[in-house]
Amino acid sequence: MTVKYLKKVSFFKDLKITELKRILDIAKNVSFKAGDRIFSKEDVGRNFFIVLAGKVKIYTSTGEKRSKTLAYMVEGDFFGEMALLGGKTRSASAQAETDCQLMVVDKESFYELIETDVNFTLCLLRTMSERLRKSNQDVESLLFHNMLGRLAFTILRLSKEHGIKKDRSHINLTLHDLADLLGTTREPLSRSLSVMKKAGILDYEDKQIVIKDRKRLESMAPTYP
Amino acid sequence: MTVKYLKKVSFFKDLKITELKRILDIAKNVSFKAGDRIFSKEDVGRNFFIVLAGKVKIYTSTGEKRSKTLAYMVEGDFFGEMALLGGKTRSASAQAETDCQLMVVDKESFYELIETDVNFTLCLLRTMSERLRKSNQDVESLLFHNMLGRLAFTILRLSKEHGIKKDRSHINLTLHDLADLLGTTREPLSRSLSVMKKAGILDYEDKQIVIKDRKRLESMAPTYP
Repeated sequence: MTVKYLKKVSFFKDLKITELKRILDIAKNVSFKAGDRIFSKEDVGRNFFIVLAGKVKIYTSTGEKRSKTLAYMVEGDFFGEMALLGGKTRSASAQAETDCQLMVVDKESFYELIETDVNFTLCLLRTMSERLRKSNQDVESLLFHNMLGRLAFTILRLSKEHGIKKDRSHINLTLHDLADLLGTTREPLSRSLSVMKKAGILDYEDKQIVIKDRKRLESMAPTYP
Repeated sequence: MTVKYLKKVSFFKDLKITELKRILDIAKNVSFKAGDRIFSKEDVGRNFFIVLAGKVKIYTSTGEKRSKTLAYMVEGDFFGEMALLGGKTRSASAQAETDCQLMVVDKESFYELIETDVNFTLCLLRTMSERLRKSNQDVESLLFHNMLGRLAFTILRLSKEHGIKKDRSHINLTLHDLADLLGTTREPLSRSLSVMKKAGILDYEDKQIVIKDRKRLESMAPTYP
């Protein structure tokens, strides 16, 4: 692992060379195989993680059928800070979605970085603030929308986040993943998708959602920013 | 405003005298009357606020009937940081619930404090992390519970947060406020409360909820920590 490599990871892009060198001294580099559990909800948290390569799923579940994907963490994203900042136990589970490489910082070093590295701290604060904003939006979406509204809201957000720049109308996602994002099961999701398809708002085929009438989709999700 | 006074406000309790003096130099002291709007959702954010006295309601709404109280801010709580940390516009509205006195820090001074005052920054990070945890719990609660489950979850949380130490079974709250906390209207809430009352789980009279069977209430809210 080199400073040059770290510079390419978005989390570190605003950090100075001296700061990166210190992080390399402090952190460990750990690999996980697709499907590996990184930590489980209710575990005592001892580490902070930054994704160097691959994809990690953060999720919560009732232990039964339904699970809710809170977020996917990709290159440059961090997770695991909540249990270190006072919560003690993990508030969600983390699992390697693909093979992945993580940078691991223990609790003591994490606090040392906060106290001595203002760019690291600003990056933490900004991202946590953005996550809080998103979580509050989720609460709003769940409260104010029926299933169709929630689906419309989520598709619009995905199209904004993951859409190809040239064409934000194509989103690649399995029905199963979309159901997890919405915290629902496939049946009500299929019904809602088919209602939208019939109405000419979108097409859904081969793990791909195609937005055909963005205006009407937006009108279905009134709190979409 | 004196250092001695600030020391009593929980947000400042871990800060050193020199840090408090600097904050007094930087911040302004502003009063609001009960009912005053402090800022509105979508406003551009220019200030960070700490409550010195009184109560502020943070809420979001669709503009129509339903509104959802995200939080009440009381002595020692801060708000307004999200728009300063990158979001730019306010993600919720803030209104004085009672007459209140706030400490106001502008954006530039807010960043100066983050860069130079580690105790201030740790306080920010810890509280934001706790808020994120709570918001994620809300999402879970909304997804996995029916109305009864959400109500049980909220009453248990209120009893933990606001209960008198000697007796965490009495909670003072109007039906209207409880409905806002749940993001629902009075009718479905009344129905759910009356179901719980008939079942001997709680009593509800004169703006006071009395928990009579905590075990069963907990069993109704399976994700309650």
